[in-house]
Amino acid sequence: MTTAGKVIKCRAAVAWEPNKPVVMEEIEVAPPQANEVRIKIVASGVCHTDLYHLFEGKHKDSFPMVLGHEGAGFVESVGPGVTEFQPGDKVIPLVVSQCGECRFCKHPKSNHCEQGWPSSNSVMCTRDSRFTCKGQKILQFLEISTFSEYTVINQRAVAKIDPAAPLEKVCLLGCGVSTGYGAAVNTAQVEPGSTCAVFGLGAVGLAAVMGCKAAGAKRIIAVDINPDKFERGKVFGATDFVNPKDHSKPVSEVLHEMTNGGVDFSLECVGSVEVMRSALESCVRGWGVSVVVGWTDLEDFSARPIQLLSGRTWKGSLFGGFKSKDGVPEMVKAYLAKKVKLDEFITHNMTLDQVNEAMELMKHGQCIRAILSISPQ
Amino acid sequence: MTTAGKVIKCRAAVAWEPNKPVVMEEIEVAPPQANEVRIKIVASGVCHTDLYHLFEGKHKDSFPMVLGHEGAGFVESVGPGVTEFQPGDKVIPLVVSQCGECRFCKHPKSNHCEQGWPSSNSVMCTRDSRFTCKGQKILQFLEISTFSEYTVINQRAVAKIDPAAPLEKVCLLGCGVSTGYGAAVNTAQVEPGSTCAVFGLGAVGLAAVMGCKAAGAKRIIAVDINPDKFERGKVFGATDFVNPKDHSKPVSEVLHEMTNGGVDFSLECVGSVEVMRSALESCVRGWGVSVVVGWTDLEDFSARPIQLLSGRTWKGSLFGGFKSKDGVPEMVKAYLAKKVKLDEFITHNMTLDQVNEAMELMKHGQCIRAILSISPQ
Repeated sequence: MTTAGKVIKCRAAVAWEPNKPVVMEEIEVAPPQANEVRIKIVASGVCHTDLYHLFEGKHKDSFPMVLGHEGAGFVESVGPGVTEFQPGDKVIPLVVSQCGECRFCKHPKSNHCEQGWPSSNSVMCTRDSRFTCKGQKILQFLEISTFSEYTVINQRAVAKIDPAAPLEKVCLLGCGVSTGYGAAVNTAQVEPGSTCAVFGLGAVGLAAVMGCKAAGAKRIIAVDINPDKFERGKVFGATDFVNPKDHSKPVSEVLHEMTNGGVDFSLECVGSVEVMRSALESCVRGWGVSVVVGWTDLEDFSARPIQLLSGRTWKGSLFGGFKSKDGVPEMVKAYLAKKVKLDEFITHNMTLDQVNEAMELMKHGQCIRAILSISPQ
Repeated sequence: MTTAGKVIKCRAAVAWEPNKPVVMEEIEVAPPQANEVRIKIVASGVCHTDLYHLFEGKHKDSFPMVLGHEGAGFVESVGPGVTEFQPGDKVIPLVVSQCGECRFCKHPKSNHCEQGWPSSNSVMCTRDSRFTCKGQKILQFLEISTFSEYTVINQRAVAKIDPAAPLEKVCLLGCGVSTGYGAAVNTAQVEPGSTCAVFGLGAVGLAAVMGCKAAGAKRIIAVDINPDKFERGKVFGATDFVNPKDHSKPVSEVLHEMTNGGVDFSLECVGSVEVMRSALESCVRGWGVSVVVGWTDLEDFSARPIQLLSGRTWKGSLFGGFKSKDGVPEMVKAYLAKKVKLDEFITHNMTLDQVNEAMELMKHGQCIRAILSISPQ
């Protein structure tokens, strides 16, 4: 019996208020409206940005909300005007949309979209959604919300992917892996034979290491204060490891000594303004490029002007600079062709009911990625 | 009677100590040693960096010194091993050297040189020099020192220029004009049809405006708190003018409103960390590029991470990113071909004896460039 056109009652993890565990609830998901797609979410990763928004973010007024933004699933039904998707299509929701029509989408150097959430506000959600629970409207994180069996998303923020793709793996391409990999390949534009430093070996940092390797870097120095992560760094291509706690001097000085004057490219994958500064200062003058990848909006970053005046470049990107609707299907193909690793990021397989447990593991650095099984396939 | 091989007694302006007027003195200039060139300086501009070092800089131990670094003159004699120059050659001393052999000189993206003063120290001078006065060694500012009738410079920091060049004009290519023009053309890589903002309409800022125009910018917004400078801005190609004092909101907001979301390129030509932040924030997200051109080393600059994460790039350069020995002769040719303006920067023609007066004019924003006549031609 088809569910198209009907309200679907399903299970979702609702964040009723900040700094509290999320609560499993039965919610109602209304049918998709014009240009919208209703998706059955099969699997979702848990990303630091979910934790950040729940525990650290400044947008305390954006609750209740369904978190989760690194998912994959099937199209259940489509709203009026949707021709790109059909029920049954395998899809990945996109944290940065691609309408294809705006001046950002049409600009060759940008992966922004005038239609997406970063344009309209800074609260990282839409004020509207198709979710209700106990008679109350529930907000949609980053216009996506994947910690729910069903979600409704504007078609500009959905990518159709290869039907052969295993959803419980490729969901990682919805945020962390694409963000780190793309930051190296698209934003830093790491060059063959170069020396790189990656600060922070979470999923984003490991993906950045993988991106540096794919771009042909000859030396990839992984920096983390948790040496337990170094073995996994090797799997993705890291060649050297530096634990700042092992040194009395600043880590930028250590890297300058290791590399005769600094690295060609550095990537900050922590979300710390102090680490952003270290990453810039670790670059060689003249041509060094440092990319801010980790998210934080609580404090200013800073540095001395001479760091830039002497020829360094400081950049940043969202979602690895990928034009999302174009890039995600390509990344899925690269995974299927074994050119991009995904399985090696996954340390835990859990269920949606265990989402609080998964967030605790992540909070304490005990997992790289936990994949939550959301709906049975 | 040739002076080659002999000590030359001549006049120079000596900065005996910081925060005090410079003093006209008779100094001795020893003959050039291996790879050095002794130059008769004909004319020199007075640049903010001279004032900065004398009045604001933190290197209080780098005195006594001969300031001046924006000069032009003739080769008087050469030391052993010098084959590139002959007595009588017209030359411009280079604030950033180009040895041609080091990894920086050989790198296509860098205009640094491992042999120059920025590599060896941060006091903006050599510890050695060929100057003495009253039995005391006098230091050489930026390895150049043009407020002297004669100076001795390593050949890696001297460019031979077209014999047709008027020295009292092209001396400006030794620092300010090349710095601003190159920051637009080489560092920002301003694109045809783009919208630019230039903060600060001193010589460097006006040269940046000229660079933006040469690169094909369609709109060039000049920002200065002194509206007297706007007329001169028009001469170089500025199309719009914003005086931050005319607005109650931050200037970055004013520029966002004027340009539907921010400029494509911004150039900070003031040397203020607050203006550096404004210039970055004035750029459009997605692809905006902001270049730090103004010099200061007293404070940190700062911004919110979202400014970079949303796709902006923060860069900087010394000497406009020009590989100096290659770039300066090209700029001289461009001036002779009327493709680059120089005369329009010059508001005052004075003599070396008037150097303190010229510095006072500049300190109070009463001149763009004063050209000092140093030696008769």
